Amino acid sequence: MIKIADLKPRTLMGPGPSDVHPRVLRAMAQPTIGHMDGQFMQVLDDIRDMLKAVFQTSNDLTLAISGTGMAGMEACLVNLLEPGDAFLVCINGVFSARLKEVAERIGARVTAIRVPWGQVFTPAMVQVALEQHGPFKLVGLVHVETSTGALQPIKDISAVVHAAGSLLLVDTVASLSGVEAAVDDWQIDACYSGSQKCLSSPPGLAMATFSPAAVHAITHRNTPIGSWYFDMMLLRKYWGSERVYHHTPPVNLYFALHEALSMALEEGLPSRWARHQAAHAALKTGLARLGIGYLTDPGCIAPTLNCVAAPAGIDEAAGRKQLLNEFGIEVGAGLGDFKGKAWRIGLMGEGADQRHVDALLSALTVIAPKG
Amino acid sequence: MIKIADLKPRTLMGPGPSDVHPRVLRAMAQPTIGHMDGQFMQVLDDIRDMLKAVFQTSNDLTLAISGTGMAGMEACLVNLLEPGDAFLVCINGVFSARLKEVAERIGARVTAIRVPWGQVFTPAMVQVALEQHGPFKLVGLVHVETSTGALQPIKDISAVVHAAGSLLLVDTVASLSGVEAAVDDWQIDACYSGSQKCLSSPPGLAMATFSPAAVHAITHRNTPIGSWYFDMMLLRKYWGSERVYHHTPPVNLYFALHEALSMALEEGLPSRWARHQAAHAALKTGLARLGIGYLTDPGCIAPTLNCVAAPAGIDEAAGRKQLLNEFGIEVGAGLGDFKGKAWRIGLMGEGADQRHVDALLSALTVIAPKG
Repeated sequence: MIKIADLKPRTLMGPGPSDVHPRVLRAMAQPTIGHMDGQFMQVLDDIRDMLKAVFQTSNDLTLAISGTGMAGMEACLVNLLEPGDAFLVCINGVFSARLKEVAERIGARVTAIRVPWGQVFTPAMVQVALEQHGPFKLVGLVHVETSTGALQPIKDISAVVHAAGSLLLVDTVASLSGVEAAVDDWQIDACYSGSQKCLSSPPGLAMATFSPAAVHAITHRNTPIGSWYFDMMLLRKYWGSERVYHHTPPVNLYFALHEALSMALEEGLPSRWARHQAAHAALKTGLARLGIGYLTDPGCIAPTLNCVAAPAGIDEAAGRKQLLNEFGIEVGAGLGDFKGKAWRIGLMGEGADQRHVDALLSALTVIAPKG
Repeated sequence: MIKIADLKPRTLMGPGPSDVHPRVLRAMAQPTIGHMDGQFMQVLDDIRDMLKAVFQTSNDLTLAISGTGMAGMEACLVNLLEPGDAFLVCINGVFSARLKEVAERIGARVTAIRVPWGQVFTPAMVQVALEQHGPFKLVGLVHVETSTGALQPIKDISAVVHAAGSLLLVDTVASLSGVEAAVDDWQIDACYSGSQKCLSSPPGLAMATFSPAAVHAITHRNTPIGSWYFDMMLLRKYWGSERVYHHTPPVNLYFALHEALSMALEEGLPSRWARHQAAHAALKTGLARLGIGYLTDPGCIAPTLNCVAAPAGIDEAAGRKQLLNEFGIEVGAGLGDFKGKAWRIGLMGEGADQRHVDALLSALTVIAPKG
């Protein structure tokens, strides 16, 4: 049996989790307190306020969810969609495809439009789908596709979606606090993210925010919300002034998220976005020198998730294994269409700095000197 | 804004979370590693093996779920029940009532039988319900009702349930490792628990195990499992040798659970049950001296969750507040039928010792000297 204290530390440069700062690990190790303790209510209030700042929203219903990023996706869909509701999903990778699968299990009528992996949608594409197959209650988009590293512009599509009378759902799991994601300015109705990516808190929490229009849709359902665990109308009674017990949240993960959000806001969002961009630029330049290029369309490369062609001349799986075992560096494998072809290099949160970029580039000169 | 490092430590004697040992907090604070890292696969394998020991089962499908105890409940129900399936639930408190609510949202046809709060069911009661309203696909029971402290005997009811051709689901959230809960010997088909009670790991993980008959029911469904996040057939491909990525589990909570399970098995289950029983006996004697009695039926008092009448002569809410603020001791409020009448005193995991009992009794001589 393994001893946890003996685990080898890693340099996390995969698609998440990202490296966690010692401040956050220490906060997480604070002795557990009760979930109905007044002290914990302050922790919750702080988290809500900080999440509103990070999501750039004034939405009252902004909270953390006691599950991972995928729990955030399911929570949004199961609250917003009833069986039979029409949902348009824009698929350009694994996570947007999951929007479809989760919604179908809820019983929604799902229409999908697709672009090739590594590309993003134009407002015109969404417009055509809305006209041909609408009306839709909800339209779903992924901001940064973790499987392809494509950064989807949101604002212009949002205008098209709202002009058609639909609500807009956006996945910001691999973007929030790493690149701009402005919920109110972009008129996003429901938005979820995960703790373990650009916020560099340990995995296990999703964060979500719902616009007044989204809340209206939830409160005017004809059928009960299919999930009790993810029921936002119950959860908001715990997060709100009523403090009605719902479930026992992961107290120590909330401590960690509190500290990670504090650090993000101490840095300031624009500085944080700039840091992610600078790390990405340095990585891209260094990879080019090694002959390693991106699989993502040049016009939509996300700084946070760098999806590159696995280096030529080496076995991609063996190369990743060597990186992990000899250099302690984790990068991600390709998924789906990119399986066996791609490496996914995350520059997220604590990982978005020159130290991480240099560690990887230096290791690559040994492993894949010719690219 | 609160600083996490400034939070006042508490002595946790409510219905959970329970106090967490420093060994477990330290394990949790180990730097995060990736969820596809070979090291983490070893952590998962160890956790599965240790959970099998703690659940006293040889079930292959034994795993942790990335959510709280209530996620464990929902996960069991959403996998085992399809819309229209008949489910018999035995309600004697808040958590058994939740079984009904969660199952109804899934679309199951739920029949409930009830006994007053603080009491448990006899095999004859279940037998009658099975005959009058059956057949049922599934029967649900709560082992220790956290809202009443009632300890439900399982084995004889299990025989009745299986004779009727039903599957048996048991909630062991407030019992597992604190009192015996023998999944195989008692022929429990699906059993879930939570990390933060008698195992004294921080909240945020559920643990569950499924018998071959339960797995057969899941694999022979006519409809897809309603939840993607809780889909056991996807989760077992990650926990099994295929290691197919599903979601990013809360890596650090798994570290904590690994350490907490190690500690439970180092102590040995029979010793651990005896320790819980001894702490309970000491508390009961001390409370009697103060004139404080149990609301639970004398024949079915659980050692882990002591549901007592709020001390006479003091305001129960003010008394709990005083305990927390002046003595740092958390006890739980009454729920539902017991709201305003009960205090729920947990003696679970690290909290099941003389030190905790003495701390509470000593504080009570100040707060409620006459009982």
